[in-house]
Amino acid sequence: MVEKVRIALDAMGGDHGPGVVVAGADLALARHPAIEFQFFGNSSVIAPLLNARPTLKAVSRLVHTDVAVRMEDKPSQALRYGRWKSSMWLSIDAVKKGDADIAVSAGNTGALMAMSKFNLKTLPGIERPAIAALWPTLRGESIVLDVGASIGADADHLVDLALMGAATARILFGIDRPTVGLLNIGVEEAKGLEQVREAAQILRDENFAGLDYHGFVEGDDIGRGKVDVVVTEGFTGNIALKTAEGTARQIGQYLRGAMSRSLSARIGYLFARSAFRQFRERMDPRRANGGVFLGLNGIVIKSHGGADAEGFAAAIELGHGVVHDELLAKIRAALSLHTKPRSQSIGPALGGAAS
Amino acid sequence: MVEKVRIALDAMGGDHGPGVVVAGADLALARHPAIEFQFFGNSSVIAPLLNARPTLKAVSRLVHTDVAVRMEDKPSQALRYGRWKSSMWLSIDAVKKGDADIAVSAGNTGALMAMSKFNLKTLPGIERPAIAALWPTLRGESIVLDVGASIGADADHLVDLALMGAATARILFGIDRPTVGLLNIGVEEAKGLEQVREAAQILRDENFAGLDYHGFVEGDDIGRGKVDVVVTEGFTGNIALKTAEGTARQIGQYLRGAMSRSLSARIGYLFARSAFRQFRERMDPRRANGGVFLGLNGIVIKSHGGADAEGFAAAIELGHGVVHDELLAKIRAALSLHTKPRSQSIGPALGGAAS
Repeated sequence: MVEKVRIALDAMGGDHGPGVVVAGADLALARHPAIEFQFFGNSSVIAPLLNARPTLKAVSRLVHTDVAVRMEDKPSQALRYGRWKSSMWLSIDAVKKGDADIAVSAGNTGALMAMSKFNLKTLPGIERPAIAALWPTLRGESIVLDVGASIGADADHLVDLALMGAATARILFGIDRPTVGLLNIGVEEAKGLEQVREAAQILRDENFAGLDYHGFVEGDDIGRGKVDVVVTEGFTGNIALKTAEGTARQIGQYLRGAMSRSLSARIGYLFARSAFRQFRERMDPRRANGGVFLGLNGIVIKSHGGADAEGFAAAIELGHGVVHDELLAKIRAALSLHTKPRSQSIGPALGGAAS
Repeated sequence: MVEKVRIALDAMGGDHGPGVVVAGADLALARHPAIEFQFFGNSSVIAPLLNARPTLKAVSRLVHTDVAVRMEDKPSQALRYGRWKSSMWLSIDAVKKGDADIAVSAGNTGALMAMSKFNLKTLPGIERPAIAALWPTLRGESIVLDVGASIGADADHLVDLALMGAATARILFGIDRPTVGLLNIGVEEAKGLEQVREAAQILRDENFAGLDYHGFVEGDDIGRGKVDVVVTEGFTGNIALKTAEGTARQIGQYLRGAMSRSLSARIGYLFARSAFRQFRERMDPRRANGGVFLGLNGIVIKSHGGADAEGFAAAIELGHGVVHDELLAKIRAALSLHTKPRSQSIGPALGGAAS
């Protein structure tokens, strides 16, 4: 059991940088007092922010670096100038060295994934990590993965995504056997991509402990909350996530337009104000802020780049939750169940590879 | 120039069958008097419905058949029992024979596509047809294709989708050079699937008449209306479409919940009633009902299976609009611009294939 949760923060990441990171840490600490923070970044900016928050400062360590990864750089560029020394790298490195249980960054997603892979390496049997998103649904929340870490997936990778997603759902939602669905373009067995059908076969045949395989789900089943975990490869997952975000924004704008068009609508809005507030809170993207990088020897949380302090706090608290319940150990145990007889090239052990 | 638009209707298709089809035709006729209808289906059900609508009956012909394709059957099953004689087949066949300009069905999508392909055949150089959807956006409407006719697409197929989508947009939106975007998981040139990057290269190099290639777009750009035509392969397109539908339904449900929770919210709702009505109308899926099958020697419109009379009328009117402006001729002309030097196997002409 983890006692204090030690969280490494890339203080320079995101559109707003240290101001939001420090304020977000302060909010998270108020709700979870058993956190210790390590801030990586420009100390001349961060130190005054910490000085203004004595409670936070008392549980924080500040490590200075001049180098920060820019939001617009390609992963390869960021690795070139940011490896070994950027605030992003150092926060991941704290996890690698065992100084922190988890790293959180609102920085450039591609660079964060590249550095995480380079430094932490993937778990045995996993070739490519995934990003899991928390998706608000009519029933609460679901986990959707992969939302963009890699493009394409064979059947075994989809099965690994199912196992890792289910392990995450067990912890975050406190369910013994989360339901898992494979995203497809129809629910009939004969439909869709071959690798998706093959993954379905494996999930049915193996009947893995710790997950309840539901079958195929379609795009509109995600928001319905039909299953706890929705599995898909990263290209489709990223497009589904962004399409949902875009649709929510679009409807919000329609609604604002409709409510401001006439006097009676504006009067109605005044009466219905608290209902609208509730509605906005349910739709608040900050509530589900934070993608979890899965499949690495360590857990890294990506916060939305545009997150404010409340949003960044949500990402920290997500990290706190999964570390507290030892997500990594549970993922290792889950993956060990999947022996991949079908694709011999990726064995669970790599012995004899060089002989 | 087309004078009278002759529309063949599969009267047995959809969840509601002839009641909705006949009522929908009546609504469409009231708005577009220059339509002639052919109804295919069970005459003992359809005739009384037509008798009750003398204006519609005067411009309609009724062709009896006992066979109707079931909503739940696989395409192969439907072809087995429904070929040559089902109401779906006969409505497509009317287009094939030149008796109708267009066919509209609310029946089983897979069966409708299979029969359309089997009977009408694909256009020269096109291996697989596509389904184009009208997607409501903040700027009006965009065309998104393929939303599920086939899975996967090479670069040349994506380019053909761009050309066919742009031809459709020219007619439906009355724009000379509609903007076209390729759906991807980032807007940078180096991102995403190889075939998508290759299609981008072709669209940039060829600079086709009749379309303005914009570049990559992401999922949230669809609802924003960033481009007039969004191009993607059918697996991703179908999942994006369904995810957007699911998100809209989810938000509608949140909103209804929020507005009924307190007395003041209910009072507010009364004042804001007409604003809510406007909002619902903008979100009304019936307004954009109807997918257009593209890439065949004839135009077939798929209405949503659950459409009511207003929804089915929208599908008929969509068909009326594209036929009136001779979509098929414009698609043939657009496709003739794309000579496919890259994939020699699918030449625009098939001469010498057997020598």
